Amino acid sequence: MIVDSAVYRGGQRVLVDCHDHDYAALRSSAADEGGFVWVGLYQPSEIELGEVADAFGLHKLAVEDAFTAHQRPKLEQYDDSIFLVLKTLWYVDEDDAVETGEINLFVGDDFVVSVRHGRGSRLRAAREYLEHAEHVLTHGPSSVVYAVCDTVVDAYLEVVADLQEDVDEVEESVFSNDRTRDSARIYTLKREIAEVRRAVLPLREPMRRFASGLVPGVDAEAAPFFRDVVDHLTQAAEVVDTLDTLLSGAFDAHLASISVQQNDDMRKISAGAALVVTPTLIAGVYGMNFDHMPELSWQYGYAFALLLMLGSSAVLFWFFKRSGWL
Amino acid sequence: MIVDSAVYRGGQRVLVDCHDHDYAALRSSAADEGGFVWVGLYQPSEIELGEVADAFGLHKLAVEDAFTAHQRPKLEQYDDSIFLVLKTLWYVDEDDAVETGEINLFVGDDFVVSVRHGRGSRLRAAREYLEHAEHVLTHGPSSVVYAVCDTVVDAYLEVVADLQEDVDEVEESVFSNDRTRDSARIYTLKREIAEVRRAVLPLREPMRRFASGLVPGVDAEAAPFFRDVVDHLTQAAEVVDTLDTLLSGAFDAHLASISVQQNDDMRKISAGAALVVTPTLIAGVYGMNFDHMPELSWQYGYAFALLLMLGSSAVLFWFFKRSGWL
Amino acid sequence: MIVDSAVYRGGQRVLVDCHDHDYAALRSSAADEGGFVWVGLYQPSEIELGEVADAFGLHKLAVEDAFTAHQRPKLEQYDDSIFLVLKTLWYVDEDDAVETGEINLFVGDDFVVSVRHGRGSRLRAAREYLEHAEHVLTHGPSSVVYAVCDTVVDAYLEVVADLQEDVDEVEESVFSNDRTRDSARIYTLKREIAEVRRAVLPLREPMRRFASGLVPGVDAEAAPFFRDVVDHLTQAAEVVDTLDTLLSGAFDAHLASISVQQNDDMRKISAGAALVVTPTLIAGVYGMNFDHMPELSWQYGYAFALLLMLGSSAVLFWFFKRSGWL
Amino acid sequence: MIVDSAVYRGGQRVLVDCHDHDYAALRSSAADEGGFVWVGLYQPSEIELGEVADAFGLHKLAVEDAFTAHQRPKLEQYDDSIFLVLKTLWYVDEDDAVETGEINLFVGDDFVVSVRHGRGSRLRAAREYLEHAEHVLTHGPSSVVYAVCDTVVDAYLEVVADLQEDVDEVEESVFSNDRTRDSARIYTLKREIAEVRRAVLPLREPMRRFASGLVPGVDAEAAPFFRDVVDHLTQAAEVVDTLDTLLSGAFDAHLASISVQQNDDMRKISAGAALVVTPTLIAGVYGMNFDHMPELSWQYGYAFALLLMLGSSAVLFWFFKRSGWL
Amino acid sequence: MIVDSAVYRGGQRVLVDCHDHDYAALRSSAADEGGFVWVGLYQPSEIELGEVADAFGLHKLAVEDAFTAHQRPKLEQYDDSIFLVLKTLWYVDEDDAVETGEINLFVGDDFVVSVRHGRGSRLRAAREYLEHAEHVLTHGPSSVVYAVCDTVVDAYLEVVADLQEDVDEVEESVFSNDRTRDSARIYTLKREIAEVRRAVLPLREPMRRFASGLVPGVDAEAAPFFRDVVDHLTQAAEVVDTLDTLLSGAFDAHLASISVQQNDDMRKISAGAALVVTPTLIAGVYGMNFDHMPELSWQYGYAFALLLMLGSSAVLFWFFKRSGWL
Repeated sequence: MIVDSAVYRGGQRVLVDCHDHDYAALRSSAADEGGFVWVGLYQPSEIELGEVADAFGLHKLAVEDAFTAHQRPKLEQYDDSIFLVLKTLWYVDEDDAVETGEINLFVGDDFVVSVRHGRGSRLRAAREYLEHAEHVLTHGPSSVVYAVCDTVVDAYLEVVADLQEDVDEVEESVFSNDRTRDSARIYTLKREIAEVRRAVLPLREPMRRFASGLVPGVDAEAAPFFRDVVDHLTQAAEVVDTLDTLLSGAFDAHLASISVQQNDDMRKISAGAALVVTPTLIAGVYGMNFDHMPELSWQYGYAFALLLMLGSSAVLFWFFKRSGWL
Repeated sequence: MIVDSAVYRGGQRVLVDCHDHDYAALRSSAADEGGFVWVGLYQPSEIELGEVADAFGLHKLAVEDAFTAHQRPKLEQYDDSIFLVLKTLWYVDEDDAVETGEINLFVGDDFVVSVRHGRGSRLRAAREYLEHAEHVLTHGPSSVVYAVCDTVVDAYLEVVADLQEDVDEVEESVFSNDRTRDSARIYTLKREIAEVRRAVLPLREPMRRFASGLVPGVDAEAAPFFRDVVDHLTQAAEVVDTLDTLLSGAFDAHLASISVQQNDDMRKISAGAALVVTPTLIAGVYGMNFDHMPELSWQYGYAFALLLMLGSSAVLFWFFKRSGWL
Repeated sequence: MIVDSAVYRGGQRVLVDCHDHDYAALRSSAADEGGFVWVGLYQPSEIELGEVADAFGLHKLAVEDAFTAHQRPKLEQYDDSIFLVLKTLWYVDEDDAVETGEINLFVGDDFVVSVRHGRGSRLRAAREYLEHAEHVLTHGPSSVVYAVCDTVVDAYLEVVADLQEDVDEVEESVFSNDRTRDSARIYTLKREIAEVRRAVLPLREPMRRFASGLVPGVDAEAAPFFRDVVDHLTQAAEVVDTLDTLLSGAFDAHLASISVQQNDDMRKISAGAALVVTPTLIAGVYGMNFDHMPELSWQYGYAFALLLMLGSSAVLFWFFKRSGWL
Repeated sequence: MIVDSAVYRGGQRVLVDCHDHDYAALRSSAADEGGFVWVGLYQPSEIELGEVADAFGLHKLAVEDAFTAHQRPKLEQYDDSIFLVLKTLWYVDEDDAVETGEINLFVGDDFVVSVRHGRGSRLRAAREYLEHAEHVLTHGPSSVVYAVCDTVVDAYLEVVADLQEDVDEVEESVFSNDRTRDSARIYTLKREIAEVRRAVLPLREPMRRFASGLVPGVDAEAAPFFRDVVDHLTQAAEVVDTLDTLLSGAFDAHLASISVQQNDDMRKISAGAALVVTPTLIAGVYGMNFDHMPELSWQYGYAFALLLMLGSSAVLFWFFKRSGWL
Repeated sequence: MIVDSAVYRGGQRVLVDCHDHDYAALRSSAADEGGFVWVGLYQPSEIELGEVADAFGLHKLAVEDAFTAHQRPKLEQYDDSIFLVLKTLWYVDEDDAVETGEINLFVGDDFVVSVRHGRGSRLRAAREYLEHAEHVLTHGPSSVVYAVCDTVVDAYLEVVADLQEDVDEVEESVFSNDRTRDSARIYTLKREIAEVRRAVLPLREPMRRFASGLVPGVDAEAAPFFRDVVDHLTQAAEVVDTLDTLLSGAFDAHLASISVQQNDDMRKISAGAALVVTPTLIAGVYGMNFDHMPELSWQYGYAFALLLMLGSSAVLFWFFKRSGWL
């Protein structure tokens, strides 16, 4: 599906008099005066993608990658174009989960083709930002690369912040006095962190290459901006590492607390049992059949026995309470 | 055993008028017009392999390696040929196990010798693909190297996907409320992941060397294709790493759940015991032999005692139910 | 907020006849005779920072970073200035916590702009040190960079020393015979250590670059001094690593001690139970209704039974005491 | 002790007319026609070693190392000779242990001095192999280096295979239903694996240097052979790493199984206890002294009570059996 | 405190006619004929150190480091001198602890200043060794650097050997059948190992630089000797790593053994309880008040009941003994 296809010239979106799908016309009208076309596709069919690939001379392998999705983030340089794969991440509040999509960018001197799988807000945001930032857009296709990378990576930081909140919740839950079953939650968070890591870490290499200013087709002047993106990636990676470590620590503490609780329970149970078996012993004593047991014939022998039972239980109760077993 | 031996010329398999075993004739008829021979062997005897080695001038050490199998994936460059060892992997559904085989490739200017141990579907698939892809096959022996690597590595991704399903099952089992004994399953999966890793990781170096275009005898134009293979290897390695981490997490959660279950059991047992010992205490009380125990002479004293027992048990039952111990 | 803005010339703070905010005037009066301006800002508003940025030609991205804070420590080199981000750390005694702030330094040939978030004692200390060390201050803006880095990193070592004390306390608590709940404390310390690490580790790269003497604008003669800073950073990192390892060890020991305590408790409980159930059995025996039980008619049968009970309990008590169960 | 000292020339062991200890004569008779001497020592005394050192001009430090043994595997290059230290490993079946020895090689243009500590089968095997492989032996001292390295490293693979069997046994034991105490076995295996690692890992560097063909005195033509040795070392290292990981997994599974067994025991015990305390309660009930307890005067009241006891136990038994507690 | 200050010339300690503190005189009398001064200080006061620093032109930062101690091992190269920091280690038998000291060496063309904190045996040993080894001492200040490094590093190996013995003891204790509390011991050893690591690891870099022969002022001829020191350092590091891993394994085994012991205890307790509760049930049965209980009127009914109790206990005892619970 074509989401949007436009020609940009001199930092402005220009109206061209041809059909969305007439890529050759778009391209020639763009190249004419130093502009470029940006064709935005969303989960294109093989045929749609094939047409675009033919029009812009995209490399067969890259087109295949963009079609099947499920690639690692990577940067491929071909003779006259580059191919960039980015993972997009977003946090779904309802089920505390991180979901992933993919953006593929084909970038040549006079064109950008973006192929998106999954949620699109980031690409739309990038396009809107650029259409309002003439001074950036004048740098041509490079500006699209930067804008897309920047918005995608900013989203990583948001997702990481959401995860951080989740970790804080887990922490609180683990160290609360409630009997919580945090291990499932911790496991899920660790799995999501692994997801984030697989989006973030492999992207650093491509961004560093952009930041070095040595990728043909990407403006060397944009280097500081890509350094900034690298920095954000590194920050995301560091925070995510810290979160992972914290979760491991929280899990350990959870294990310890299970053990401690079991011990507490055992003590409580034992103390409770003592409150019952001691009177039982006393009852047993007065259930003995000796001929000569003075208490048995006392007027208040029965009451005495019951008081003895209650008394012993009370003493034990006090004793266990004092030593923290109850 | 010779599985297949054929001469390829100009992207086509050509019929030659000589015996399968007459390697010299095959080779000369291939070299004649810029073609090459591909001799496919399956667990050859020392003699079979020796003949082939003599005919194509294979290096003694490489031949030894190909015969004994159980090598690490590696690439050896000799003066006029290269020797490549790949591990093949396949997933056996019946027993959820990963099995491994080995493919050894000797590649010269005008020949390819493939020596296979274990299942062969991948080699056959590669040959079939090539025989239907004239444009690839025209690149000579390089095309065979690529086709074999590509199909072998694609199989890795399939195996990894199967393992991912297994891990999902384990996950579900661990977090179910059933008392499962997942540790054996987790152990087995970890062992299989180690197996996959030993096939995948050492292969990256050879593939990178191909991708750099600096291995003599392998077409520099094939570089992007080998970069794609490297990419798939890296992806397989990353997924497998994630699976390993997830399994460790799942094991930890399993341990925690064993502890929690033990605690739950202990509480249930204690609560159950309380239901019995309290009535026992009451019975003990009315078993005492005091002369003056008014209840003993009541008309419904016995019923009263039984009701007291039942009542105390009922109260305890309600109490333990409410606090989640039963 | 402007904290302090001053002109330094020849190693001296000089009084200039212009307003604190008149950066252009400050700068020109400084540049005049080989001096420099140091403008110190504390959590400036966007407008305040904008004015400063305009006056000294600071890079847009760096200014954004300095405004939002929450950056990683880093060094950015622009054409005519450098931008350095440092994390500040301090230990809050009341709640045994490590808190973090941030210092951003913009350094040009004739100016230093420091933007601080969080506690400021370190910047003030650096400025005071410099104003009393003419021989250092004469080296210009470099001297400010050094003084700030040095005081900030010295503070790291202090924080690390405080953490070391905390770890010592935890250690003592874990190996005491008391039933302590150390896991929360250990977790918190590990989180604080992670915090310190994120301040210390990324700063090593910038300091090494200063120490190499290759950063334009930073005096090559200062190299040994920055090597010293690198050394302190490395020391802080090493100690912090050791502390982390020790905490992991302490946690393991804590887990082991929970298990041991549970076992001790179980033994104590069992021994205690034995002291009750054995007399109960004896009582049961003498509660049997046989026609011929000689003891029952003994004059002191009852006393005998009680003595038997006490005796058996005493024997058991002695036995369990001896074997360490009680 | 001199084990063997011989002169080799043109790929043959030649008889020379001088005493074993007359190193100078041996050397001159060897050097004469492009041959070399191989002096084999076993745990030489300081004096024996000193004589050899003088005769061949061995470096003082190397001689000291060879005498004291307990070195790490390493390669030292001196002006006119090299010094190589290898660890030998062998598996002692009786006590499932790995033992280590040491071989020190001094190699010059016209001599090899081997100093052995511990078992010698590998050195003897190397010498025998060489004396039957004229084409190898003609390469001079290099051939000795290769033959020794090759046989020593082959032995590593054998030891590793033995360890693999041990690990398989442990695995089986851990996952059997028997109550095994595998942790000591696992610990011992881990210690032996550490031993193997310390022999294998440091040897890779020297072998790589030989394989690079840049060590003077070692034939560059031997490079592919040393690459093969490197390969075997890498394989040994990889397998040993995998074994270590598997053992860790097996230990974890062992821990889990201890917990599961404890839980099973606790359930069994509780169920068993229920079978006794319930009849005890019934007995208690009929031991009560109420005046009006109809059952007491029944003809078969006693039998009824016993049947009630048996019946309740039977019901409980069936119940616990069904729910898997017994 | 000045421990010793002497002039060496031509490999000999020479008597000079000036006061210990007259550094200028000492230095000139040494430099005169190609000799050097070695001033040995022990925890000098700031004034003492200042005098020495002035006399030999030591770098301010290095002097500060030497005064405060608590540095990491490091090598600083200044224009005309080098500054080396080494940690000294010794094992205190009484409390099985590793203690650390520090040696700081300032080395110029004609002087060595050693500043020691903590035990001094190693420095004295180095000086004594040199004064008896003329051929070494003639190499000037380099020889002091080597002698000090060598003796210090040799001490590391001794400490490591002592730790190895401790680990062996722990191992034995963990796998003994005694109920040992090894976790504190293991923790302490791990802390000491961390201490050793912090002395050993950072020293490798300086020693490698000496071994490369590229440090001005240190004789390139000494390279093989420093390679030997590097080797010993690497060996110490490797052993210490192995010990750390073994301790982790021992701790795991300790945890497992605690669990196993708890299980054993639980079984023992349960079996013991069965021996009491079964007779209690029997007593309860014969305490029932049925009118018709034939046994009650038997002549030897009481004896029969007691025998029944004893018999049931005996059977249970035999049963539990056989199944290993008692």
